Amino acid sequence: MRCLAARVNHKTLLVAVALLALAMVLLWKRCSPQPERRGGADGEPRQRRDPEDVASQEQQKAPPVAVAVAVGAAGRAPAPKYEEIDCVINEEHTVKGRREGSEVFLPFSWVEKYFEVYGKIAQYDGYDRFEFSHSYSKVYTQRAPYHPDGVFMSFEGYNVEVRDRVKCISGVEGVPLSTQWGPQGYFYPIQIAQYGLSHYSKNLTEKAPHVEVYETGEEPERGRAGDWSVPRGCSLATVWDKARLTAVKHFSAPDASEGVSLQLGNSRDFIISFDLKFVTNGSISVVLETTEKNQLFTVHYVSNTQLIALRDRDIYYGIGARTGWSTLTRDLLTDLRKGVGLSNTKAVKQTKIMPKRVVRLVAKGRGFLDNVTISATAHMAAFFAASDWLLRNQDERGGWPIMVTRKLGEGFKSLDPGWYSAMAQGQAMSTLVRAYLLTRDPAFLGAALRATAPYKLPAEQRGVKAVFMNRHDWYEEYPTSPSSFVLNGFMYSLIGLYDLKETAGEKLGREARLLYERGMESLKAMLPLYDTGSGTIYDLRHFMLGTAPNLARWDYHTTHINQLQLLSTIDDSPIFKEFVKRWKSYLRGGRAKHN
Amino acid sequence: MRCLAARVNHKTLLVAVALLALAMVLLWKRCSPQPERRGGADGEPRQRRDPEDVASQEQQKAPPVAVAVAVGAAGRAPAPKYEEIDCVINEEHTVKGRREGSEVFLPFSWVEKYFEVYGKIAQYDGYDRFEFSHSYSKVYTQRAPYHPDGVFMSFEGYNVEVRDRVKCISGVEGVPLSTQWGPQGYFYPIQIAQYGLSHYSKNLTEKAPHVEVYETGEEPERGRAGDWSVPRGCSLATVWDKARLTAVKHFSAPDASEGVSLQLGNSRDFIISFDLKFVTNGSISVVLETTEKNQLFTVHYVSNTQLIALRDRDIYYGIGARTGWSTLTRDLLTDLRKGVGLSNTKAVKQTKIMPKRVVRLVAKGRGFLDNVTISATAHMAAFFAASDWLLRNQDERGGWPIMVTRKLGEGFKSLDPGWYSAMAQGQAMSTLVRAYLLTRDPAFLGAALRATAPYKLPAEQRGVKAVFMNRHDWYEEYPTSPSSFVLNGFMYSLIGLYDLKETAGEKLGREARLLYERGMESLKAMLPLYDTGSGTIYDLRHFMLGTAPNLARWDYHTTHINQLQLLSTIDDSPIFKEFVKRWKSYLRGGRAKHN
Repeated sequence: MRCLAARVNHKTLLVAVALLALAMVLLWKRCSPQPERRGGADGEPRQRRDPEDVASQEQQKAPPVAVAVAVGAAGRAPAPKYEEIDCVINEEHTVKGRREGSEVFLPFSWVEKYFEVYGKIAQYDGYDRFEFSHSYSKVYTQRAPYHPDGVFMSFEGYNVEVRDRVKCISGVEGVPLSTQWGPQGYFYPIQIAQYGLSHYSKNLTEKAPHVEVYETGEEPERGRAGDWSVPRGCSLATVWDKARLTAVKHFSAPDASEGVSLQLGNSRDFIISFDLKFVTNGSISVVLETTEKNQLFTVHYVSNTQLIALRDRDIYYGIGARTGWSTLTRDLLTDLRKGVGLSNTKAVKQTKIMPKRVVRLVAKGRGFLDNVTISATAHMAAFFAASDWLLRNQDERGGWPIMVTRKLGEGFKSLDPGWYSAMAQGQAMSTLVRAYLLTRDPAFLGAALRATAPYKLPAEQRGVKAVFMNRHDWYEEYPTSPSSFVLNGFMYSLIGLYDLKETAGEKLGREARLLYERGMESLKAMLPLYDTGSGTIYDLRHFMLGTAPNLARWDYHTTHINQLQLLSTIDDSPIFKEFVKRWKSYLRGGRAKHN
Repeated sequence: MRCLAARVNHKTLLVAVALLALAMVLLWKRCSPQPERRGGADGEPRQRRDPEDVASQEQQKAPPVAVAVAVGAAGRAPAPKYEEIDCVINEEHTVKGRREGSEVFLPFSWVEKYFEVYGKIAQYDGYDRFEFSHSYSKVYTQRAPYHPDGVFMSFEGYNVEVRDRVKCISGVEGVPLSTQWGPQGYFYPIQIAQYGLSHYSKNLTEKAPHVEVYETGEEPERGRAGDWSVPRGCSLATVWDKARLTAVKHFSAPDASEGVSLQLGNSRDFIISFDLKFVTNGSISVVLETTEKNQLFTVHYVSNTQLIALRDRDIYYGIGARTGWSTLTRDLLTDLRKGVGLSNTKAVKQTKIMPKRVVRLVAKGRGFLDNVTISATAHMAAFFAASDWLLRNQDERGGWPIMVTRKLGEGFKSLDPGWYSAMAQGQAMSTLVRAYLLTRDPAFLGAALRATAPYKLPAEQRGVKAVFMNRHDWYEEYPTSPSSFVLNGFMYSLIGLYDLKETAGEKLGREARLLYERGMESLKAMLPLYDTGSGTIYDLRHFMLGTAPNLARWDYHTTHINQLQLLSTIDDSPIFKEFVKRWKSYLRGGRAKHN
């Protein structure tokens, strides 16, 4: 220091200090933004800009990115580059935007609400970007031409049982119970068919699950033996079942006992299945380790008709008397979560609980057990539960009456319990046809054929038929008065007819074919009425009631597209491909042309 | 300096220099934004942000405005407050947005195109704001209940003659000539009726103009005398016109002469009017000073049938033989600009030229002149020019045949020249009824009554009637095959019927009333088909042809609203008020509900 000091004279140093200080002051000034000068409220005047500001404005007419880069050269670009600007929206209200020269930036928090679009910041590949999307719903890719024995539309992606409007899967019926339009719960044939069709489709698209076998009734040397605990006062024996020609386990455990139990210890999969025959009242319970620490939950399958109950960490499902052999297949994940989320409202409560390990199975009462397995999926069991339910519950008119009051909306009369739905009829057909094609059991085909009956009757005669403007036959998801012409339900009803007419053959399928053809003609004629030029309309209530159009939210819009994609593979009318293309474009902000 | 230097030692100075330099370096670093670190193309990875950036991100979760203010305190807030962020649009492309903490700002240059909205920076009250608007068109305020003798809708704001698709105002016919669908030009009864109705409406809403009188044929003592120049070989005399019972000017000026000229010198108004009767071929020319410096333009009104011509700075309009007395009223501004903008295309060329002073009038040939005036407006002259044209040009079927081929669009057969339009019929009725109510001349009412005839005939019989779905009668602006159901033309056709049935009385107006009532019923039933939930549809071609809806651009949308507003004052059905309210909301970004 001294060395340097010796070589630099006083004067030079003073000049250097002065210059540096001056440079710093200048730099500081450049660096700090101009103080904000705005009025207190919207529309109050700001102070007039001085001419320099005006000049800098012109300079900033370069594209915004270039301006942003120029900020780096602090020494040369004197003006504030980025400033707040009041954005007056439709002369009504003001939002705070940003301005860089001639470019204005609008806050997404406003854009989002105003245009009802979606966006979020996403980080991947090590940097943040903002992902904007016009709609929240996606269209599936139509893989191959549609066939009545194939995947149903995009239903392999559906998961009916997890919906919060599914109260639970009934132990007696094996199908979901809906609370969509009433907290009391009711069997909704549309939901049951969709439950069947989704599992049918998953069965085709997913690989076969690993199945862990815990008990077959056979002796240990034949394979892995059941690891049973039989407490005092209980008994367990292997016996020969004459009817089934197989060895089974006979259990006997008084209600007051701990029950005989089979160790399972499966932490991977949660679909349990077993063959069961009670001799007395009894129960099969499954003990689960869950994600709630140190909490064992037990799901009890009891020989009564109670739907579902929850007491502390015990969940109860009635499974009926079961005095003859039947297979019970239960998704423990669903059964646990529906139990924990049990509520008196329309929606199952949200819960984070998940099963972690299937600990053991406990039998009480007296009865027989066989073929205890755990697997990741059991889609065909669910499919046949639905198909069989449809067989059992079709009425003498060929319909599946819906036992809940349905009020579609202002201006429509209520549908009283017992109404039929073309969508239910159609989806049931699609389910039954698949059951028939798998089993060749004529009962399934017969039920599907009988299901056409309500298509032929108008709403006033408990049918589902409506006629648009005295010309176009329509099959109503909701056979309201006045007619409502719900698009998606109609298309499902047509797909059901298609499945049936393709499967039943020329003669048996004649009626289905005629109904299908008439319906398709109506669809082609009326499809444009559902096109808003930027989305679709759910139904024609606006025309029937003289009201605003009931716009389809995005997931209905994509359902419309998915259905049209399916139809475009079985009918080569260009209208389907054209509409699919245009309606897809709406998902990305596309619009029909204006004049 | 020396004095200061003496008191400060070397070491202190060196330390000061070092500290200042260090401070400067630090300040510089704060001041400059981080160097940009982004990949070359969309989706390429940016480098990972360092933890400090992540921390600053959390800190920035305060609302954006607060953050912007913090920028001022440069010394304390070290992190960059706003940054560029890639905004990925629908997984398709990327635009550069800005980010401030959790708020993202989207560039309006993108928003504008994507959503087709409008915006501009406006400066008033001394500061800049950004004005966003959803639509570019406004609805007028319905003042009072509509009456057949009142203002027509919002036509007081229309200015038919300035449209670039109006080639000029014919000197022979006194009405506009359209080039809308063909550069050759044709008289379009809709345009002519609108020309009449707009001037009729302006006459009711504007105050009476000042009229400067230059020549009445009377002798000087009666008032201001014409300041005439009569060159050698020409003559000018005051004579008594026995038929008109008034003194008039008789002029005689060979074609080769300069002509007799009347000094006008009016710099304020540009509508010239005079009574004229030629004995030979002749011309009346008006010399204009214009905004083009030192350039005098002359507009010649010549006793021939040429439509319009331009040679250098001379513009020619044929006005017919005029061998009997008639009044010629010409808008010199329009005549000048249509002449200068004359083109062979469909559109008149843009021009900035404006008249500045009406210098003088020059008469050639032999004939009589009287009542030379200049005024700001002459609305009734334009109105009666239109009304008289409609009287003269109605054909034996009661229609105004349109002599141009009209192809409405792909999928429609062309309309061959000679077609009728319900809109033309209706607008003509509205014009003729007003002419009748002013004059009580039964010719006008008779023409209006005969104009209902095409409403009763289908398109195939050269009528304008269509029937929607075998049920709803409709009057077609374009009687296409298939039917097109253009909404705005239909409503104009109904307003015409209303004017007529209200004016003609119970008996004469019976047919108009029935047509009106049937049409209004159709309108009420079909109106919802034009509602997209965010705008309106121009016609029903999507339903007729199975195509995309032909969305109405904003000015058609506001026309729809204006028409409904009018109808809501003559029909108290709630549908009109409800639709007006909802359709107005669409102008501000409102949307119908989705499900």
